[in-house]
Amino acid sequence: MRFALLQNDTFLRACRRLATPHTPVWLMRQAGRYLPEYRETRARAGSFMGLATNVDYATEVTLQPLARYPLDAAILFSDILTVPDAMGLGLSFAPGEGPRFRTPVRDEAAVDALRVPELEKLRYVFDAVTSIRRALNGRVPLIGFSGSPWTLACYMVEGAGSDDYRLVKTMLYSRPDLMHRMLQVNADAVAAYLNAQIDAGAQAVMIFDSWGGVLADGAFQQFSLAYTARVLAQLKREHDGAQIPRIVFTKGASPWLAEMDSLDCDVLGVDWTANLGRARALVGERKALQGNLDPNILFAPPAQIELEAVRLLDSFGLPHTGPGTGPTHIFNLGHGISQHTPPEHVAVLVDAVHAHSKRLRAQLND
Amino acid sequence: MRFALLQNDTFLRACRRLATPHTPVWLMRQAGRYLPEYRETRARAGSFMGLATNVDYATEVTLQPLARYPLDAAILFSDILTVPDAMGLGLSFAPGEGPRFRTPVRDEAAVDALRVPELEKLRYVFDAVTSIRRALNGRVPLIGFSGSPWTLACYMVEGAGSDDYRLVKTMLYSRPDLMHRMLQVNADAVAAYLNAQIDAGAQAVMIFDSWGGVLADGAFQQFSLAYTARVLAQLKREHDGAQIPRIVFTKGASPWLAEMDSLDCDVLGVDWTANLGRARALVGERKALQGNLDPNILFAPPAQIELEAVRLLDSFGLPHTGPGTGPTHIFNLGHGISQHTPPEHVAVLVDAVHAHSKRLRAQLND
Repeated sequence: MRFALLQNDTFLRACRRLATPHTPVWLMRQAGRYLPEYRETRARAGSFMGLATNVDYATEVTLQPLARYPLDAAILFSDILTVPDAMGLGLSFAPGEGPRFRTPVRDEAAVDALRVPELEKLRYVFDAVTSIRRALNGRVPLIGFSGSPWTLACYMVEGAGSDDYRLVKTMLYSRPDLMHRMLQVNADAVAAYLNAQIDAGAQAVMIFDSWGGVLADGAFQQFSLAYTARVLAQLKREHDGAQIPRIVFTKGASPWLAEMDSLDCDVLGVDWTANLGRARALVGERKALQGNLDPNILFAPPAQIELEAVRLLDSFGLPHTGPGTGPTHIFNLGHGISQHTPPEHVAVLVDAVHAHSKRLRAQLND
Repeated sequence: MRFALLQNDTFLRACRRLATPHTPVWLMRQAGRYLPEYRETRARAGSFMGLATNVDYATEVTLQPLARYPLDAAILFSDILTVPDAMGLGLSFAPGEGPRFRTPVRDEAAVDALRVPELEKLRYVFDAVTSIRRALNGRVPLIGFSGSPWTLACYMVEGAGSDDYRLVKTMLYSRPDLMHRMLQVNADAVAAYLNAQIDAGAQAVMIFDSWGGVLADGAFQQFSLAYTARVLAQLKREHDGAQIPRIVFTKGASPWLAEMDSLDCDVLGVDWTANLGRARALVGERKALQGNLDPNILFAPPAQIELEAVRLLDSFGLPHTGPGTGPTHIFNLGHGISQHTPPEHVAVLVDAVHAHSKRLRAQLND
């Protein structure tokens, strides 16, 4: 496949800890319900899965936020649970609710039946990646993604979202052998899935460990971190002569940041509980950092949003500016953007990040 | 008031970082729905508030877990939201749901109307404290408690539990002045409330900052920690010649443990994301530590529960054993016990904590 030359490489450079003229910014769930044009496409598609499995719709909504805001990266529009759906668990989204699996994995027989799915079943995702990459036409890079093995396991056992993760933790503590078996299959499936996204045109890949932070110390290392590492070990490092940065985001992992430094990835995403200055001191010599504005800040008036963006950039401090590698920051939220966010507030945020991060670098040259 | 002499002072000694023959253990929400005898009393009371506001019922349910298990402390049966209820917000509990306020605090007029409530409106709590203390008859000490100023504010603004704390954070980021006003009133109210519990017979007090961990770095220090400190500064240090230990528990505060060390309290409660060995190294020379078993471990078979209890005690290591003060540990869960917990599993846990913590100390003397 031949794609257009990349015009804005700030995101990929920052992933690789290389200097950039401004701090790149994108937002988790940037294509989504807070945008009226997304809701319009979603209505035409009929259902969330109808939207996610249709290449044209997925391409359309992925590009919608880029038409509004000068974001520095695009992220594939899809769901973190496509892999267990392809395993045959039957993913659906009831209106106003979260994801649900028709056949959750609750006993040994169900775990034993799990297999790395035929990638053909996920063809719609890879086709969307290629379609989006073409439509982007080199404007910004495209990020592919998957849920982490542990996060997939949470939904696979609970069958839906959960307040207390009682069922999945009961399996973990009662039958750790079963949980390890499931996580191995998940890890190998996620790795194959992300590699196929890379083949299809994804220029970076991100593992969303949305529920790693609900685990206890000790369990996190054994059941989340170890299987994220198992995915990373199998990922392609480059494709078509370009390096493919690997990003890991674990919500709630602030207590374990030093341990996450051991992961063989390029970027660590952190939620809003992390202090970026402290995180930089801990891991900034080996990993780029991505994050970490509280999405609720986008409900404040524009002047406050600007203040908080500046405060966050300042908490990281001046990124690396010279030749070679050094500490870099990719601006993002600490979690997905809320569906209630006023779209015009996102414009304020993106502009504030670009303006202030240029100012920071200009001060250096004064 | 004259109360019976205390027979088991292990909990109070551990709070004060003094040596004990075993590691004391109690469980957050130990009087609660997982016990059939609690559900029976609750049914007689008709409603949760009917139970919590009746001195006899509150006494009865507080003592129920002590009749089953050799726990080392009792905790007042009440709710963390009694203070805003006394402010006139109208607390209720719909069946199967969490707490709800009739008149949430959503604008400047509502904030300006907030006052430290007449303590007379909370008389039922203080009467329950005295009644429970009498009924305990010196068997174990009684812990009083309150929600933290920030946690109260979350419920006061949201009007109920929340997934994203959008309303309270919108106020915090849009009108920090209003949020500070509310938190000042809350802090002064909580301090007066806890002091009255101490006067009524509480032998230790605990501040539950259940939602401090949802705040971003920076906001946590300003809007949660600072007002917990404001409460602590106003608390009585002793009563009737006895020292009154102060415990602070912030769920999700693992990222800020070093900063919590600055609090003028005796004990820090930690959730299950904390590593007790690391926490001890950070704060163990100044604070006792309380926690931090994942409540979901109680769904595992007894042999696994025993293993995990041993693992947790070992992660703290040998507590202080000599004269004077040193690092101590109070065994607890990292959050309230689940209503689905098998009661016989709690017996396994309590026995395992006592047996292994005695073994640890005995090894020292070998």
